Amino acid sequence: MSNLDTFVLTEGSRFLDELKAFLRIPSVSTDPTHAGDCRRAAEWVRDQLKHLGCPKVELLASETHPIVWAEGPEVPGKPTVLIYGHYDVQPPDPLNEWVSPPFEPVVRDGNLYARGATDDKGQVFAAIKAFESVNRGGRPPVNVRFLIEGQEESGSTALFQFLSREPQRTVADAVLVSDTAYYAPKWPSVETGLRGLCYAEITVRTSKTDLHSGLYGGVAPNAHDALVQLLSRLKSPDGKINIPGLYSAVRPPSQAEREGWKKLPFNERKFLREEVQAKALTGLKKFSIFERTWALPTFEIHGIMGGFTGEGAKTVIPAAATAKVSLRLVPNQKEKAVQKQLIRAVKALAPKFADVSVRFLHGADPVIVDITAKPFQLIDRAFKEVEGRGVVPTRSGGSIPVVPALGQKGAPVILAGVGLPDDRLHAPNEKIAVDQFYKGIRVFGRFLQFMGQ
Amino acid sequence: MSNLDTFVLTEGSRFLDELKAFLRIPSVSTDPTHAGDCRRAAEWVRDQLKHLGCPKVELLASETHPIVWAEGPEVPGKPTVLIYGHYDVQPPDPLNEWVSPPFEPVVRDGNLYARGATDDKGQVFAAIKAFESVNRGGRPPVNVRFLIEGQEESGSTALFQFLSREPQRTVADAVLVSDTAYYAPKWPSVETGLRGLCYAEITVRTSKTDLHSGLYGGVAPNAHDALVQLLSRLKSPDGKINIPGLYSAVRPPSQAEREGWKKLPFNERKFLREEVQAKALTGLKKFSIFERTWALPTFEIHGIMGGFTGEGAKTVIPAAATAKVSLRLVPNQKEKAVQKQLIRAVKALAPKFADVSVRFLHGADPVIVDITAKPFQLIDRAFKEVEGRGVVPTRSGGSIPVVPALGQKGAPVILAGVGLPDDRLHAPNEKIAVDQFYKGIRVFGRFLQFMGQ
Repeated sequence: MSNLDTFVLTEGSRFLDELKAFLRIPSVSTDPTHAGDCRRAAEWVRDQLKHLGCPKVELLASETHPIVWAEGPEVPGKPTVLIYGHYDVQPPDPLNEWVSPPFEPVVRDGNLYARGATDDKGQVFAAIKAFESVNRGGRPPVNVRFLIEGQEESGSTALFQFLSREPQRTVADAVLVSDTAYYAPKWPSVETGLRGLCYAEITVRTSKTDLHSGLYGGVAPNAHDALVQLLSRLKSPDGKINIPGLYSAVRPPSQAEREGWKKLPFNERKFLREEVQAKALTGLKKFSIFERTWALPTFEIHGIMGGFTGEGAKTVIPAAATAKVSLRLVPNQKEKAVQKQLIRAVKALAPKFADVSVRFLHGADPVIVDITAKPFQLIDRAFKEVEGRGVVPTRSGGSIPVVPALGQKGAPVILAGVGLPDDRLHAPNEKIAVDQFYKGIRVFGRFLQFMGQ
Repeated sequence: MSNLDTFVLTEGSRFLDELKAFLRIPSVSTDPTHAGDCRRAAEWVRDQLKHLGCPKVELLASETHPIVWAEGPEVPGKPTVLIYGHYDVQPPDPLNEWVSPPFEPVVRDGNLYARGATDDKGQVFAAIKAFESVNRGGRPPVNVRFLIEGQEESGSTALFQFLSREPQRTVADAVLVSDTAYYAPKWPSVETGLRGLCYAEITVRTSKTDLHSGLYGGVAPNAHDALVQLLSRLKSPDGKINIPGLYSAVRPPSQAEREGWKKLPFNERKFLREEVQAKALTGLKKFSIFERTWALPTFEIHGIMGGFTGEGAKTVIPAAATAKVSLRLVPNQKEKAVQKQLIRAVKALAPKFADVSVRFLHGADPVIVDITAKPFQLIDRAFKEVEGRGVVPTRSGGSIPVVPALGQKGAPVILAGVGLPDDRLHAPNEKIAVDQFYKGIRVFGRFLQFMGQ
């Protein structure tokens, strides 16, 4: 047993008590009545990091929920690891579904229940305790920076401002984000890819004003008709997106990733019945479920506006219709390039009698972490040692806008969480398995040690 | 000059004064504050008809805006003509756009301006004055029945109840409805066809709940996708409706109708630019504009509900989506049969991963008047005499639900209005050309005389 493991074992009970104290602070960032609690949580984290021997600890952007910034003792000649996490939590509603109150942490059957247990207090605290565990005698193996924000659940505005204002402060050799989950129990995974996003409103206009379908039905163009034709052309029933050039920038997953994904415990039938809860899965059938959700772009319609949607039977021919749509993007697509491709496709595929326009609302580039990078190899080694199984390089179909911002200087961003898929983040009875919390401390501690070797 | 013409000429000034008195009553049926005015208008009509020598005059359904029912003197052995019209009017808003106040009738440049001038007080009063003009000495040429309601602008509820409760009372040899317009100045027209309607909501459901497009985009079915696919299949871009059997009941317009339509003064360019105000007309190109709007069924999308239609960028995969749609029906389609055809087509054309349902909200069968019927020939003769040009058998693309109800006993319903296309019904500065009002009295009077010969 290593020194690290022994330390975690002997101090484990204290670590858990400290985490409970952290969880008792109802730091709900979206609720203005909890602004004081968010500040208390920030101060609690600041005091922790001071107490653990960080020579420089400060609260940034303190006009809002502050960002905790801390620097560990300087270790000349060693790499720098930036640890990112957040102390804010989701609202606990609906309260009546909690078995025990959300801000009164309690252990039942090996799980610690509380709002924020896994997202993200438990996980970021595991990283803090990992630092404590390897910082014995004030000599950590690497240079450590902490960046722990309080607006992750509400837009990360202050963080984005800080990252763009002071990019040099977050220069690092690796960024460790402990805010995700294992693929399955005993299946540690690192998300090596995140999809990007291109969200747009497509509007078609076919006449100056709405028209009466009795008088003009049969000859007047119908905006919803035009939109339906356009949308049906933009994506084929087989799931292929008909936007010229869209797929050319798509980088297929590596052989190593594919092989990793094949090994994952996955039951398509169960996925369909229990998660998607539909009659059938859709999309490009020649690709696996993982490829379709992690490594291929999507085109989704979110809603259609215009015409008459009230109660009853109004026989209007709509003059204009708007669809809210979005594309999920994958490496190496670029949001800006996809915007141009979408505009071109919309103009080419819309019926000639319609005027079309596209307005972009929101977007993000996709993220890919090179799994041959050294930090990835080291986290894999840490998991192998602690869990007995190395990391599966999974991806996420979603977008986490803070990730590309954290990695802007080229450092690999390692999304190495220790949550479990049934942790119920954002839902009642959120929990973290106590065992996973301790594993997190050991894995992150080993990672810091390996980085310093 | 006939006796009738002479009478109209000598009494014309009085007729116009009486019409002005009728127009001064603000009988807005949709506005409860005008309930008393609606009653006053009904009583005014009742008193007119009594004064003109109708032996039986009564107010029906007087718990609401009453229906005026009157029977002319009995003329044994002669046919019966039922005259339908309405005394209620549309609200006058927006008031500030009226050149003269809506309920202070005034003649300018040969036009009488007031709310209800053409829709329908001026026109129904022309029919009443026609009766007066041919009822000299208490001996009209035919048996006349008046049915003048006060809910035409608000659903005709009382009228429908009366017609289904006492169908024998409205048995007639012809029904004269004076509530429509010439096709163009000097182009009298009778609407010989009205389209029916089948209004429905088509709902597709693809999963139990909305899903996150990051996690499930690429494999989860999208309800809007399914609806768009379905709708794009239900109608081809060329305008053909892909509902099996839909066109088989369609009776093409007669040779006489087609020839009449060809003669009508119609400018497609002007129609497109000034009425439809679009880049192009749509629909089945091998048919004329008249055929497409009067003699062919349509399929229109009115609006699409479901998913996310609020401000901003929510990346939801919708679990359900509903389209409001309607079909206009033409002779000899039947609403009930079309409902079944639509359900079958929706089930056949929807993607297999979607559950579909259809809910019907509203409908009406189409109406066709046989232009070889005697009353039609006689109204044609009356117009020839008065206007110097016979009737063009036009149709209307819209639905007037009261028309099939009035003709339920097989009597031809003659929609022979004397309005003009620029009368601005339902809009500010509604008017009737004074000349058209007098022509109406003469045409309807001659029609009653011809019916009695």
